[in-house]
Amino acid sequence: MHKIVIGQAGGPTAVINASLVGLVEGLYGKAKIYPVNNGYQGLAHDKLEEMDEKQFNWIKEHQFVPGACLGSGRFNFTPELMEQAVHNMKKHDIHTVVFIGGNGTMAALERLSQIAQAMGYELQTIGIPKTVDNDLGHTDHAPGFASAARYIAQSVRNIVKDLEAMRNFEQVRVIETMGRNAGWLALSSGFLRASSCDGPHHIYIPEVSVTKERFIADVESAVKSNGITTIVVSEGFALSGTAKVERQVVNGRLVLGGIANQMEQLIQEHLGYVVRSENLGMNQRSASYAVSLQDRKEAYEVGKQAAQFVLDDMSSIMVNIQRQSTKCYNYTLGQASLTSVAKHGERLLPESFISDVSEYYAWLEPLMGEPITPYPASWR
Amino acid sequence: MHKIVIGQAGGPTAVINASLVGLVEGLYGKAKIYPVNNGYQGLAHDKLEEMDEKQFNWIKEHQFVPGACLGSGRFNFTPELMEQAVHNMKKHDIHTVVFIGGNGTMAALERLSQIAQAMGYELQTIGIPKTVDNDLGHTDHAPGFASAARYIAQSVRNIVKDLEAMRNFEQVRVIETMGRNAGWLALSSGFLRASSCDGPHHIYIPEVSVTKERFIADVESAVKSNGITTIVVSEGFALSGTAKVERQVVNGRLVLGGIANQMEQLIQEHLGYVVRSENLGMNQRSASYAVSLQDRKEAYEVGKQAAQFVLDDMSSIMVNIQRQSTKCYNYTLGQASLTSVAKHGERLLPESFISDVSEYYAWLEPLMGEPITPYPASWR
Repeated sequence: MHKIVIGQAGGPTAVINASLVGLVEGLYGKAKIYPVNNGYQGLAHDKLEEMDEKQFNWIKEHQFVPGACLGSGRFNFTPELMEQAVHNMKKHDIHTVVFIGGNGTMAALERLSQIAQAMGYELQTIGIPKTVDNDLGHTDHAPGFASAARYIAQSVRNIVKDLEAMRNFEQVRVIETMGRNAGWLALSSGFLRASSCDGPHHIYIPEVSVTKERFIADVESAVKSNGITTIVVSEGFALSGTAKVERQVVNGRLVLGGIANQMEQLIQEHLGYVVRSENLGMNQRSASYAVSLQDRKEAYEVGKQAAQFVLDDMSSIMVNIQRQSTKCYNYTLGQASLTSVAKHGERLLPESFISDVSEYYAWLEPLMGEPITPYPASWR
Repeated sequence: MHKIVIGQAGGPTAVINASLVGLVEGLYGKAKIYPVNNGYQGLAHDKLEEMDEKQFNWIKEHQFVPGACLGSGRFNFTPELMEQAVHNMKKHDIHTVVFIGGNGTMAALERLSQIAQAMGYELQTIGIPKTVDNDLGHTDHAPGFASAARYIAQSVRNIVKDLEAMRNFEQVRVIETMGRNAGWLALSSGFLRASSCDGPHHIYIPEVSVTKERFIADVESAVKSNGITTIVVSEGFALSGTAKVERQVVNGRLVLGGIANQMEQLIQEHLGYVVRSENLGMNQRSASYAVSLQDRKEAYEVGKQAAQFVLDDMSSIMVNIQRQSTKCYNYTLGQASLTSVAKHGERLLPESFISDVSEYYAWLEPLMGEPITPYPASWR
């Protein structure tokens, strides 16, 4: 019987627990499961205890709950700690590791694989994709992304309507979304746009460089045409020649965030409009009220598929989603090697989606589900 | 046949259009309706055109849409402009004004009434309550509030789960809500709290004064007990001896906002925890995905009741909601004089709700509807 370490790593999503439930349901009764707390930290620190029925039921209760119920987090998983992790698994005779995560998690799993091999320890490794940013390579998309996109698209649509009502008081809203390296999320904010006159009028993404002058001209012309404008910007966007905007969370530790506020100041200074910026915040990865049911279903399925791959003795792979058709949405689950995923690194928006956003929205549609607010059919 | 000016004023809510639909459905065919654009500004500037069937249908399409479809906004309705408004109505022989709004809107309606009277012009005035802040007096609560509270309670619950998963990376989240003068919204953030160990651990509201030292001690003790803590603060809260935190939206025009950021800095400086602050933003008044169905129903009903009061020739009143029972939730619609509403001013949280928050949550329960995320029954 397989003995399997399972963990969750990186920022949670609204559906990461659905993947965990798919995984444990696929393995329960067929393998001994060792869930680790706080991602790789739990593995490095030998917190290895076999899951019992009570914990199994407790995990299953979390299928629809945001956050990562095993505890996730950020951890500097050094080569020394990876060796330690292999020693820990050896003590328990565990030869399988399954982790749910994004690029950092997959790269670490790949390195752990190599270190185990160098130590002569047989280790089966399987990754389950998860990221709101959708910047994982070798999968059509990653679970977690569509729910975040759905929250963003509907929120921006609502805030556009709110601004329309306030046009005698303010002219500009600047909305910041997640997206460290790629504009998948920011660009999804226009998905429910009713017409080209409707906001958001401009969306700034890390893939496309824009000068300060061009940005100011964009805003001015949008306000001149419409009286008001809503613009959206990815946290990873920076105006040409400037660094990405970061904020200190404590003594020197930085997280991305603040570009919308910088833009607000530029607009005040150069155009004198009444402007408010806001950041859509942690709701993007936890908004239970905006979850895409398709996303939640796929999250569960990739977890369950990982269980099958474990039992089939496959290794050094990440489960992936392979789209077969967009029009009548159809996909199969498969795998990519962890090496190729790690090598690929952050996946940016393809050029075709940037140059023709309607192509992107057609691709996005089957993942999003119905708009939450029943806007009149005549509006679209 | 009555000729009636109708308008929406102040910040929109997720259900203000439901009130408008209730109002026009109650009046259509029985009165001539003149919807004004941008609230009192439209009335002062004589934008008075009778609604036709096409506009009636267009308004009805907005019943579930956030924002204020007539255009709302902020406007300095001076006594001179009020006289102008009376002249404008005289030209069209209009003797009725119905406005949907909050404290400022009701106070302006009351003054408009007095000015018309002083001018010897017969004017029927009726107010329909609307505010996310819930700070209108002489009504059990105001439509718009419960949907904002539901968005906040579920968002904070979700963000608490997200932080639990990230405890090896960060310790504190500070979440800012709306609430200029009163803590109704901020305090609603704890409505879905599963237990006293669960976040939010502290909620800061304008009604309760707290020193900087006490605040820092609160955060420190919450982190010592739980490892992490989520705290919530109303935008209208200020630490003892400091002014409310405002931000400039353009050359000297200020809006409230920024107390969470100030708290973040204090926590970094004094406690050295990793901390992130965020503001729940405009979603609070436009989150279509978190609307309370009870709130939407009541919003429609107060609009329809206002139409009935018009036809019954009542005047100088605001429609109100009179709670008959909390346990088996039951209410009737009635009225309060605009004079008493204007005199009352901002309604703060009652002492009994502050000293025993469970009493507040029992009061809130029938307005909130079911939690959006099906958290396990065993958690509550």
